[in-house]
Amino acid sequence: MSEPGVTPRSEDYSRWYTDVVQKTELADYSPVKGCMVIRPYGYTLWENIRDALDRRFKETGHVNAYFPLLIPMSFLQKEAEHVEGFAPELAVVTHGGGKELEEPLVVRPTSETIIGHMYSQWVRSYRDLPLLINQWANVVRWEMRTRLFLRTTEFLWQEGHTAHATEQEAIEETLRMLDVYADFAVNEAALPVIQGKKSDREKFAGAVASYTIEAMMGNGWALQSGTSHFMGQNFARAFDIKFLDQNNEFQHAWTTSWGLSTRMVGAIIMGHGDDQGLMLPPRLAPIQVVIVPIWRKDAERGPVLALADQVHRTLKAAGIRVKLDAREEVNAGFKFNDWEMRGVPLRLEIGPRDVEKNAVVLARRDLPGKEGKTFGVPAPGVAAAVREMLDTVQAGMLQRATKFRDANTRTVKNYDEFREVLEAQGGFLRVHWAGSSEDEDLIKQETKATIRCFPFDPPEGEGPCFYTGKQTDCIAIFARAY
Amino acid sequence: MSEPGVTPRSEDYSRWYTDVVQKTELADYSPVKGCMVIRPYGYTLWENIRDALDRRFKETGHVNAYFPLLIPMSFLQKEAEHVEGFAPELAVVTHGGGKELEEPLVVRPTSETIIGHMYSQWVRSYRDLPLLINQWANVVRWEMRTRLFLRTTEFLWQEGHTAHATEQEAIEETLRMLDVYADFAVNEAALPVIQGKKSDREKFAGAVASYTIEAMMGNGWALQSGTSHFMGQNFARAFDIKFLDQNNEFQHAWTTSWGLSTRMVGAIIMGHGDDQGLMLPPRLAPIQVVIVPIWRKDAERGPVLALADQVHRTLKAAGIRVKLDAREEVNAGFKFNDWEMRGVPLRLEIGPRDVEKNAVVLARRDLPGKEGKTFGVPAPGVAAAVREMLDTVQAGMLQRATKFRDANTRTVKNYDEFREVLEAQGGFLRVHWAGSSEDEDLIKQETKATIRCFPFDPPEGEGPCFYTGKQTDCIAIFARAY
Repeated sequence: MSEPGVTPRSEDYSRWYTDVVQKTELADYSPVKGCMVIRPYGYTLWENIRDALDRRFKETGHVNAYFPLLIPMSFLQKEAEHVEGFAPELAVVTHGGGKELEEPLVVRPTSETIIGHMYSQWVRSYRDLPLLINQWANVVRWEMRTRLFLRTTEFLWQEGHTAHATEQEAIEETLRMLDVYADFAVNEAALPVIQGKKSDREKFAGAVASYTIEAMMGNGWALQSGTSHFMGQNFARAFDIKFLDQNNEFQHAWTTSWGLSTRMVGAIIMGHGDDQGLMLPPRLAPIQVVIVPIWRKDAERGPVLALADQVHRTLKAAGIRVKLDAREEVNAGFKFNDWEMRGVPLRLEIGPRDVEKNAVVLARRDLPGKEGKTFGVPAPGVAAAVREMLDTVQAGMLQRATKFRDANTRTVKNYDEFREVLEAQGGFLRVHWAGSSEDEDLIKQETKATIRCFPFDPPEGEGPCFYTGKQTDCIAIFARAY
Repeated sequence: MSEPGVTPRSEDYSRWYTDVVQKTELADYSPVKGCMVIRPYGYTLWENIRDALDRRFKETGHVNAYFPLLIPMSFLQKEAEHVEGFAPELAVVTHGGGKELEEPLVVRPTSETIIGHMYSQWVRSYRDLPLLINQWANVVRWEMRTRLFLRTTEFLWQEGHTAHATEQEAIEETLRMLDVYADFAVNEAALPVIQGKKSDREKFAGAVASYTIEAMMGNGWALQSGTSHFMGQNFARAFDIKFLDQNNEFQHAWTTSWGLSTRMVGAIIMGHGDDQGLMLPPRLAPIQVVIVPIWRKDAERGPVLALADQVHRTLKAAGIRVKLDAREEVNAGFKFNDWEMRGVPLRLEIGPRDVEKNAVVLARRDLPGKEGKTFGVPAPGVAAAVREMLDTVQAGMLQRATKFRDANTRTVKNYDEFREVLEAQGGFLRVHWAGSSEDEDLIKQETKATIRCFPFDPPEGEGPCFYTGKQTDCIAIFARAY
């Protein structure tokens, strides 16, 4: 048991984050530089994320497979931009079985190359396409500055890799999977992400175009939470993924890749957490309901625990993820704080007076105090009431996060205003944009803000670029980002 | 689409195995020495294995977590036997982020060391015990001779690691998880495994005692299919996992570990396959039922496909893993062979005469020809009929494998008989055993057979050791093994 309480967000946001991750036992530092241990509470959250995504992947026709962890160094060199982007981050195996290897192997930072190689073996005819394969795996990228979940040397993710007969199909796939990510983020994680295209400066090494979902964190910063890339024929050319088309002519395939990682756990922590700690969306929470039995006199203990036990069994049988906290070495107040910190969406209290009424009390994590409490919920209908309340909390969290995002998204007209608003209020800055990659670099150096994306919103018409003054109909969202 | 047909087992068992793995698209060779690609059909089988095990782990109180892939070399050196056993198989990362590392990191061959280190941070009091954690992960062991699924440089597995306050509890856990493996093997994989203890020569590097489930393959060889180890306090001492007991005194914890890997896929292939190819147990098969519509005249096509479609939807809605093979470029005979090779437990045929009767034909993979066929299964009750037939196939496969195992398990009384029977018939050899590890080595050199385990059977009384002649009540099972 760790000491209760986390550093308030207002005092030190970064320390708040680390406190939350460690004190709620989501993760811990490891003795290996930049690598973390995902503890059972954090891993269960990841399992729930995985299952919710995997279901969506399978519904859209994808299958899972597994490719080798170790990739010959020469494979990465086959795509010029790709190796340039990833070379500085590689972990390299030089020895195996007590001998120096003839060719060093890299620990995969991503798997376009090895999968591209295999696809070139498997694809012969247009009939073999599309290939729609996803992989759940660990990857390693040597990072200088790491932060639990947000940026770690090793992380867990899924990487989808698809090959198609036409450019159009590949583009559709890229956008379909971005939609899948957005649907997951909104409906499971309760994060109102913004979908859009990445600027050239921020796109994936080797891609023609990269797309992203961007979430707003509690301090107004952005977190890139999932990306989908259209590769054109770049990797198909580098790895010779060719097929005979219906006219019996050889064509290079068109490929995509898309990934979402344990970073999403960080998005959930910072997208919803408050000064009490975590606030987990019911659909992903490892524990959806915690039952806290309350008694003072010895005579009350038996009946209270009996009802708690009965409710526990009822909820479990109804498929609700429920925990009964029957600890005797800590009091109810301690438990309330502890489970609030751990972000459990619903607390179910049972005291002697509830036993008399054969009822329970429900308390929402997302609404503090009396406002979030429902008294006298009849025990016989408790499963339906809890399920309904979980839906209410889920919807409430999305609404709250959307309100926060909208309140912290501001349109600015010129660079002075940009800097002023960014400094004073932060958040997302919507601008007309006609600058270059160099302009973007300069803005980053001066303000630490980058283009998060060109959002997929309906067109707003032309206006002057806030930085260059040129007329444009391109809208960009800038923000500081993790 | 690969060419149909696999090399018959009698012609070349080893080639039969490789043919089956590749032609059914379970897996493929990769460009990285000793590493394989698990293709979607094989990976789905692994997902089903994983889910069936994971459910059992959770039912027995375990939770999942994730520990780093890379482990400091010095960690392995903390347990003398452990490093001796694993040092020759290590893959070593010497460079990261473009620089040589101060201390080399090994790619985990197993995680006792890093998990032991973390447990020493997390365990303070007897109240923190037991720790019951499992990890699903990839591991790397530099192997000289590799074989798809059976022995690969990288493989997927789960590794459970638990820590307990008493020796008794840790021993109970070790045996409980062996039971879980056996229950999984028998009831999901239809493999009648033998549970037993490993000889000292074959035990895990660093363990006090190792236990195993051994399955018999189609050529009579044994395959170690899952192991559970009692570590005593060896790793707790090496990693300083200490706790304050109820008397406020420091004690070292007692630990266990247990693992089952993608090797299990090899066990299923060789435990059930025949000259036609794979034969998959219904409970784990990626596709449980394949629907093959059959027609000759154009006028028949519509009604046949309509019924096929309807049955497909019915079975899917009933939660049965079903595929409708409506390909038009190949005929029904080709499809029959193709799906037999891929080991689908049930084929559901629908022809024009079935449409007239609003019925279907079921054909079992495990019983060839007419014997395995059921005609006139009414379409309205098809889901229940299929479910029942899948249960029948599952039970039939276990029975068949048990019969085969028993017919190929022989008791021998002396070394001459041992060599004779092994050469002529193979299989498992039951003997009284009082030899030493050196004797075991000699027998292996001379016959390639090793002690697979000391089985947990009821005592049989004393007898003379088949090798040394000494009286003993110890029974051993010898076999050639993968």
